[in-house]
Amino acid sequence: MKPKTLFICAACLAFFVSSCKQAGKEHSWTVEAPGKKIKVEVMLAGNNQPAYRILHGETVVVDTSFLGMEFRDQPPLSENLNVVKAKQSAFSETWETVWGDQQKILNAYSQLQVEFEETTAPHRRFSLDFRVFDDGAGFRYVFPKQEAMDSVVVMDEHTTFQLTGDHQTWWQPGDWEIYEHLYNESLFSGIDALSKRSKHDLAQSSIPENAVNTPVTMRTADGLHLTFHEAALYNYASMTLKVDKENRRWVSELVGSPDQSKAKLRTPFQTPWRTVQIAEKAGDLIESTLILNLNEPNKIEDPSWIQPMKYVGIWWEMHLGKSSWDMAGVNHGATTANAKRYIDFAAANNIGGILIEGWNTGWEDWWDDKKRETCFDFVTPYADFDLNEVLRHAKAKGVRLISHHETASGVTQYDKQLDTAFTQLEKLGIHSVKTGYVGTIIPRGEYHHGQFMVNHYQRVLELAARHKVTIDAHETIKDTGIRRTWPNFVARETFRGQEFNAWASDGGNPPNHIPTLAYTAMLAGPMDYTPGIFNIKFDEYKKENQVNTTLAHQLALYVAISSPIQMVADLPEHYAGNPAFQFIRDVAVNWEWTRALNGEVGDYVTLARKERGANRWFIGGVTDENGRTLEANLDFLPKGKTYQAVIYADGPNAHWNDNPTDVVIRTQDVDAATRLPLVLAPGGGVAIYITEKK
Amino acid sequence: MKPKTLFICAACLAFFVSSCKQAGKEHSWTVEAPGKKIKVEVMLAGNNQPAYRILHGETVVVDTSFLGMEFRDQPPLSENLNVVKAKQSAFSETWETVWGDQQKILNAYSQLQVEFEETTAPHRRFSLDFRVFDDGAGFRYVFPKQEAMDSVVVMDEHTTFQLTGDHQTWWQPGDWEIYEHLYNESLFSGIDALSKRSKHDLAQSSIPENAVNTPVTMRTADGLHLTFHEAALYNYASMTLKVDKENRRWVSELVGSPDQSKAKLRTPFQTPWRTVQIAEKAGDLIESTLILNLNEPNKIEDPSWIQPMKYVGIWWEMHLGKSSWDMAGVNHGATTANAKRYIDFAAANNIGGILIEGWNTGWEDWWDDKKRETCFDFVTPYADFDLNEVLRHAKAKGVRLISHHETASGVTQYDKQLDTAFTQLEKLGIHSVKTGYVGTIIPRGEYHHGQFMVNHYQRVLELAARHKVTIDAHETIKDTGIRRTWPNFVARETFRGQEFNAWASDGGNPPNHIPTLAYTAMLAGPMDYTPGIFNIKFDEYKKENQVNTTLAHQLALYVAISSPIQMVADLPEHYAGNPAFQFIRDVAVNWEWTRALNGEVGDYVTLARKERGANRWFIGGVTDENGRTLEANLDFLPKGKTYQAVIYADGPNAHWNDNPTDVVIRTQDVDAATRLPLVLAPGGGVAIYITEKK
Repeated sequence: MKPKTLFICAACLAFFVSSCKQAGKEHSWTVEAPGKKIKVEVMLAGNNQPAYRILHGETVVVDTSFLGMEFRDQPPLSENLNVVKAKQSAFSETWETVWGDQQKILNAYSQLQVEFEETTAPHRRFSLDFRVFDDGAGFRYVFPKQEAMDSVVVMDEHTTFQLTGDHQTWWQPGDWEIYEHLYNESLFSGIDALSKRSKHDLAQSSIPENAVNTPVTMRTADGLHLTFHEAALYNYASMTLKVDKENRRWVSELVGSPDQSKAKLRTPFQTPWRTVQIAEKAGDLIESTLILNLNEPNKIEDPSWIQPMKYVGIWWEMHLGKSSWDMAGVNHGATTANAKRYIDFAAANNIGGILIEGWNTGWEDWWDDKKRETCFDFVTPYADFDLNEVLRHAKAKGVRLISHHETASGVTQYDKQLDTAFTQLEKLGIHSVKTGYVGTIIPRGEYHHGQFMVNHYQRVLELAARHKVTIDAHETIKDTGIRRTWPNFVARETFRGQEFNAWASDGGNPPNHIPTLAYTAMLAGPMDYTPGIFNIKFDEYKKENQVNTTLAHQLALYVAISSPIQMVADLPEHYAGNPAFQFIRDVAVNWEWTRALNGEVGDYVTLARKERGANRWFIGGVTDENGRTLEANLDFLPKGKTYQAVIYADGPNAHWNDNPTDVVIRTQDVDAATRLPLVLAPGGGVAIYITEKK
Repeated sequence: MKPKTLFICAACLAFFVSSCKQAGKEHSWTVEAPGKKIKVEVMLAGNNQPAYRILHGETVVVDTSFLGMEFRDQPPLSENLNVVKAKQSAFSETWETVWGDQQKILNAYSQLQVEFEETTAPHRRFSLDFRVFDDGAGFRYVFPKQEAMDSVVVMDEHTTFQLTGDHQTWWQPGDWEIYEHLYNESLFSGIDALSKRSKHDLAQSSIPENAVNTPVTMRTADGLHLTFHEAALYNYASMTLKVDKENRRWVSELVGSPDQSKAKLRTPFQTPWRTVQIAEKAGDLIESTLILNLNEPNKIEDPSWIQPMKYVGIWWEMHLGKSSWDMAGVNHGATTANAKRYIDFAAANNIGGILIEGWNTGWEDWWDDKKRETCFDFVTPYADFDLNEVLRHAKAKGVRLISHHETASGVTQYDKQLDTAFTQLEKLGIHSVKTGYVGTIIPRGEYHHGQFMVNHYQRVLELAARHKVTIDAHETIKDTGIRRTWPNFVARETFRGQEFNAWASDGGNPPNHIPTLAYTAMLAGPMDYTPGIFNIKFDEYKKENQVNTTLAHQLALYVAISSPIQMVADLPEHYAGNPAFQFIRDVAVNWEWTRALNGEVGDYVTLARKERGANRWFIGGVTDENGRTLEANLDFLPKGKTYQAVIYADGPNAHWNDNPTDVVIRTQDVDAATRLPLVLAPGGGVAIYITEKK
């Protein structure tokens, strides 16, 4: 798993470009993607304000959009600018991921760097770097060291995206605290984030304006798909996109802080990349590598300790109410004996890891806002949990332990214990931790997605890397592709996870949840969704709740969701005797390549993947509340051989609510010429495992 | 598993009966089964010769049949007899099996004991005991201690079964050495056992006459099913049935010995029971308990060490040629590492035992007739097999080791080592051994089914019981129900097993093999058939051979075959990734009850069984080369509850030869009112696992 950068062609052709005159525009510079389809024009417009537009062929997808910044105690930086220099270059390399959807990624782009200087005092300087790929474009503000700007406080970033129509939009409210909202589908003009302000089932929430969080995806009347997001978010506030209905545009709105500022910085610095992914087919968004390519190469020299894996957890049983996190509870989940039970189950079923929540002291007090600042101890196990014995047993069985650090957002407390906690993890040979940030941030007034927390998450991540520990962070900041640079950030819960099905008062995640996330939140990075619930209705635990998919849908999630760690989330006893469990035993977690076979945003998604390092292929397709018949073109299989497909499909009477566990498993010979019909029930799915026939 | 004899009603009503006059018959005594349907008449006929006939309702199923014995140096004992006494009694009890198809068995019969004495010198005395059950009748000769008969040598037993028509018959040749012949179907008049004399694929064979081995099953023109067999075979030669076409009757022919005699005995003694099971439906033969009821109660006081289980084995890989029994071979199978591999596989998959063949020295020479008398050593492992380490590993994993004693029929050698070998087994805590008797018997001239060997097998069995060891005997004598008395005799290979599919030059066992054995050989007792081959064609090992069933048929065998030990016979790697393997993980091996849902001899058989001590039900159905649609009536399920059935069925394109691995697995809610359609492919099957729905 050692990452390699394969330089197939690294061409840096730098040249100065002069502006050209266009009708009605003073100056403009154009840069084309390698494949020529996507173009970005940069210009000074209006009152010598920097602007850009993006074209796909002849179609304008983002029309003239102005850019600017606002710093405390400084005049706005947006007008009266002059272009000092414009530099174009081209770059192409193929690099190898440590893990992920694609083993090798082509990073080919054309770059246009335009340097601006104010024509008036204080003559501040910055450049805009545009990179144009065949799957979209990104740009960022770059501020060099300069006399007029040393330490600065960003009060606002005036980045805009001028839309060309009232596009269909899949959006979630621009919450500064959490992403655990359902995605909504409406026209751009119909976005109403403020109506989502109810804290319904949420531990924390703050929606100050009618804005959306990214990734946000739109479909134009022409059928083009656009996803707006950001890449390489470091030492800066996360960007939400404000809905400017009057001008029909997105306007950046950075997440704030207690003093109403957005970011405290010192030159030189640059903002994260602001990105627009452009796709003719919805599935092309999933195959897009733009966000990763806008991040820096891997900084972990020997990442061999980072192992993609399936894992079980002492976790779902707490959500069902079978056991408790705290030892004082009716039935403490994280006991030595229960941990061994899960370890044995994992070892017997080709599952590499076990997450144990509730192993450490403090859970009695974490819901108490007055106590949660200091309640947790990240090194002391409960008395009924023999950590060394559990570790010994896990090691004997070849199962990795995933530790758990729930901070209750008592970040100051966690920061104090970080060194000790990660030193202990390394000493014990524990290579994985799941972190959690439930509740409002302490220090109070900070937001989960603000600069302070972005820096905290990054500090934890880099400390973890030094101690050879991977991070699976819950209630954290969305991924912006930094997993390329820090591949120990294996997954996040920055969306509404499976757990909501166990207790949400709104009925849980609807059948279209994953068919929507696949083209929105999942474009950000790996999701720790915790799929694989077989006991769909779990009436013996909770009559009012259930999973709103079929069982085959749950299986398909192991392929339809991108993540190098995938939980086998249900209780071991709920898998007992179910032949469909074989798919979970078999399914891989790390991929040579991933392809979207078909799909539409919010409706359905079907992915095909080849396991990294093995001739094993998997297909996973899920649909919303509508049943449908799809087709899988198996032309990705090498020709001239026969393969066996084991197909886990919805049964003839399957329905996410009426009959969710009706699964039919069958085998079929297939080859590269096969066009496999896929019949999905309402809320259903299909999971397929393909191997060479012996 | 402690056996209990539950006396629901034990009534012994003894009374003397006098003869009654019938037209054309001098004397006759009639005894009726408790249910009155089946009747036996005993009489003196012809020249005062004992005879009997059996009626089912008004239908004569066995017409007047004469009985007699012939001893060396004595006149024949068959004529000139007088009835001294006739005694009738009735008996009823319910007893509990240690393991098996039924947990509780009703043993209810009417008995008629008729004492005979010669009217001429030497005035020998004997009685005929008849027991009449609702599922058939049995009788035996009982010789009391008497002056005229002390030590005797049986030269012939003249038992006959007078048939009432040229019935359809499922028969195998009356081989004195082996039962590994395919069953044949013909009219009685078409039986031609001598045509089966070719030693084709057989290690030993001797078919002296046109006779058949029992159990042999017939169907009358009226649709009645009759099975002829024997019960409680001890210290006597096994009975074959000679085909007397002229008189249309079976005539007993005992297996011989080197001096042409049949049995050497001393009064008092009795012969085994000669039995006729009578059934209106073919499936009733399977539910018949007559053979067990004609045996004595369990003699093992604490049989708790006898554990029904599934097991894996280092075995099929030798038959495929992947590895060898002998260490000098290309690839010795029974190595420490390979044993551990199988143990780990068993432990991970709810399989309780592992058989290891080729663990002990001697295999280099066993095929050499000049060496096989002394080649085997039953206590010394090969150098590459660390018995203690394998045992330690097995114990740590909770898997029981099954040892193996292949004698190559060097019985004198085995007899000499028996004490040492079984003492070692007990010392090591090994509770199971598989014995084997390939080749002609040494001492030469004895036959596998003669009195000498019957006594040898029994000696081994009783010695094993003293050392707490169960016996799974291959190439042994057929079961005659003695497992009731000695429940450590857990299974036998007294039929043509799965192994023939790996190498038989005649193409292996045809699809109708089990649908025939179910109503013939399997009526004798538990079969160690070694089902569960998933790699049906195994072309990578042997292009010329294959299993002649579908994969679903292989699954169904775990239910369709009766045995408290069931091998999971294929190589672990051939199960990998196959969801159908879940059925094998789940299936039970010990039953509260067994019911035949439907079936016809030689065509198909469907059994339903409830696991002993658990609310888990299983159905297994297999068919011959004809596909068919059957129905399973689930009225055996307790009413008022809903159940989940996991159904492993032949896929739409399944066919034993063209597409054997096409399996469809689906789940379905069922209840006691469900009539489940079963669609079986040619050579196919169906396996169903039913549990209460949570």
